[in-house]
Amino acid sequence: MKLSRKSSAAKVAKLGNWTLKGNVITRFFRFRDFAASMRFVNRVGRLAEAANHHPDILITYDKVRLGLTTHDEGGLTEKDFRLARRINKLVK
Amino acid sequence: MKLSRKSSAAKVAKLGNWTLKGNVITRFFRFRDFAASMRFVNRVGRLAEAANHHPDILITYDKVRLGLTTHDEGGLTEKDFRLARRINKLVK
Repeated sequence: MKLSRKSSAAKVAKLGNWTLKGNVITRFFRFRDFAASMRFVNRVGRLAEAANHHPDILITYDKVRLGLTTHDEGGLTEKDFRLARRINKLVK
Repeated sequence: MKLSRKSSAAKVAKLGNWTLKGNVITRFFRFRDFAASMRFVNRVGRLAEAANHHPDILITYDKVRLGLTTHDEGGLTEKDFRLARRINKLVK
């Protein structure tokens, strides 16, 4: 179920590190080098496959940008926040 | 050594499938699903590490966009085209 704008904003604030832009939540990560970025992206990929929910992933050498939204619902849903929380745990 | 605009355009034409936009050459790929995209990106990552030259990589579920440029030279160089040719061979 698509979350309201207000509910999304509250959830983003609680998540930390993620930014809400339109219907998408985004987080930037910086690593030591390209190899470290790739290792992280593969871990995110495994979480995504397990959740059957897939972020957009941009890799620029030592930087990774993830974007989450629920295309089927035309907005943010609990699925996005659940996966974001799991991703946050990877870099704790 | 940075290639001239004319030389870059000729090389892009020869490559096929890649598009020249400013100082970057770009190619889009489409796969069966996210897992196939990830497999491809890991193969590209290995080529990139071997060449010590790294494309920008955008993964959107079953689609992958690669962008190549030589930041140190402020433009396209032979390194970009060499890696593009190797990447093309992956999907032949």
